[in-house]
Amino acid sequence: MNTTGQTRKEEIIITATKLFKEKGYSAVTMRDLAKAVNIRAASLYNHIDSKQDILKTIIISLAEEFTRGMETIKSSEAVTIDKLRAIVALHVNITIQNTYGMASLNNDWMHLEDQLEHYLALRKTYEQDFIEIIQSGIDAQEIRNANPEIIMFSILTTLRSLYLWLPKKEDLNRQELAKNLGDVLINGINHHRTTD
Amino acid sequence: MNTTGQTRKEEIIITATKLFKEKGYSAVTMRDLAKAVNIRAASLYNHIDSKQDILKTIIISLAEEFTRGMETIKSSEAVTIDKLRAIVALHVNITIQNTYGMASLNNDWMHLEDQLEHYLALRKTYEQDFIEIIQSGIDAQEIRNANPEIIMFSILTTLRSLYLWLPKKEDLNRQELAKNLGDVLINGINHHRTTD
Repeated sequence: MNTTGQTRKEEIIITATKLFKEKGYSAVTMRDLAKAVNIRAASLYNHIDSKQDILKTIIISLAEEFTRGMETIKSSEAVTIDKLRAIVALHVNITIQNTYGMASLNNDWMHLEDQLEHYLALRKTYEQDFIEIIQSGIDAQEIRNANPEIIMFSILTTLRSLYLWLPKKEDLNRQELAKNLGDVLINGINHHRTTD
Repeated sequence: MNTTGQTRKEEIIITATKLFKEKGYSAVTMRDLAKAVNIRAASLYNHIDSKQDILKTIIISLAEEFTRGMETIKSSEAVTIDKLRAIVALHVNITIQNTYGMASLNNDWMHLEDQLEHYLALRKTYEQDFIEIIQSGIDAQEIRNANPEIIMFSILTTLRSLYLWLPKKEDLNRQELAKNLGDVLINGINHHRTTD
């Protein structure tokens, strides 16, 4: 452990995540990484197997965090609107915690090798769960009867782009952001909208 | 002109746009492009100066199309909600017309050379106009009093991601999509929302 309480492996992964964000996964070499962590290239291999090993760790652990969050939300007793608010908060929290990792997830997932199918399966299940929550909200007349795919697309693309936008907004606190973004996504922006 | 009425230059640009989408701008060579258009590499230069020349044509012409659209919307007499609906329709129409070009705009703009600043200026003005429309809607109590930047972020990231999502949805017609997406973005999805 170093002075910040990270293990050397954690330090390597955090540094790699930043490098991937700055230069793109393909352009980063193990030599770049060794230099950035200030370690000999040969010693790097005492901690990690390969660049692919790091990418796997970053992306799969994030994807599994989303999956666990979604499972908790899905199986809760909350009404649909509150489930959707919880999904917004899940994305805000994970993105604030690991903005660089979210950049990797969004830009580098296609570079996964043996874990690509596992990642795609997690993503597909996440989207299906999301659609099911929306659909059950429509069935319960909690959500307006609009195309569930358009609703999911609209909410999810916004949430997936948070990593691009959040670093510029350091003045917003996360509860406030989750609340405001949830309001905009769920209640819309029309002051005069009549319920239908 | 060939049988579809395109000039050779137009044909080259359309083919390049597809290649950029498939392989990424950096990976495409003039040789790849010549092969794809079925022309000798040397002859390619009778029609275009460089790969950069093509990228410029694709991105700047799209950015200028958005700018013209925004100027028309901004200067119209419509109420804010209708201006926002017109912005949604502008994105849907341009994206349906040129999905590959929108991929280039989103993924390759940073490869622009002498036109990079011009592009960034157009984008900045577009976002400022967008914020002003939202702000004047808030002032007129047409739009709920939420953070205008969160509103713009939420709407614009959805609209900017349309190129990823539209090709999978060929069954949706564009008026219907613009209408439904506008409803979701402006009126939200909450069935029971009371006006405030």
